[in-house]
Amino acid sequence: MKISRTLLFLIIASFFCFETNAQAKDNMYRIAKIKVDTNQLELYKSTLREQMNTAIKVESGVLSYTVVADKNDASLITIMEVYANLDAYQSHILTPHFKKYKETVKNMVLSLELIDTELIERVRKADY
Amino acid sequence: MKISRTLLFLIIASFFCFETNAQAKDNMYRIAKIKVDTNQLELYKSTLREQMNTAIKVESGVLSYTVVADKNDASLITIMEVYANLDAYQSHILTPHFKKYKETVKNMVLSLELIDTELIERVRKADY
Repeated sequence: MKISRTLLFLIIASFFCFETNAQAKDNMYRIAKIKVDTNQLELYKSTLREQMNTAIKVESGVLSYTVVADKNDASLITIMEVYANLDAYQSHILTPHFKKYKETVKNMVLSLELIDTELIERVRKADY
Repeated sequence: MKISRTLLFLIIASFFCFETNAQAKDNMYRIAKIKVDTNQLELYKSTLREQMNTAIKVESGVLSYTVVADKNDASLITIMEVYANLDAYQSHILTPHFKKYKETVKNMVLSLELIDTELIERVRKADY
């Protein structure tokens, strides 16, 4: 009886472990490269911040955004976007906050390149 | 006496809070764009993984690496590197594991572009 309980525990634990790995494997990593009108840069950044913070808060499938600006040209923005999976991304672009962002920035964005990528490795300090 | 203890606590707490913000503000975000020889791609990735995992483990100033490959061309690698500050990066490139990586991959890397960037915003789910 003791062995069968241990076995049951292991089977259930393996199932959860497999689920987590399968989910992480589905994560969608996208790089967005955006050239912003220099005269509207601050407004663009605040609009982007609002969109991202809302998305992280209200959408379960939006996992992370990291936004950086080129030190040689602050109007060149790169965003590393992480979604739980393709469905999560497709839901995201239909949300009111994303549509509001797209509408607000349409005359601020001079060019936009979207690069679909695959995760090779991610390592980080526990407190980062 | 009670008030002055509270004040003292607040002063100390503010100091730590300021320190943490100041440290995060110093974080160095670099994007590396690497074109790898397709015939040596798997060896390149395992060499990179070894370097990154060692760096995260043994260097306090190496905070995070996220490595992705372009879905349209798996030999186009982008790395988002985060160091605690410029000193941490300068120490990193002098470590034996980094030097070993550079020596091992020198004939695998067809081109390398390093882009120094500034963090604009980073948001993430608590469990990402």
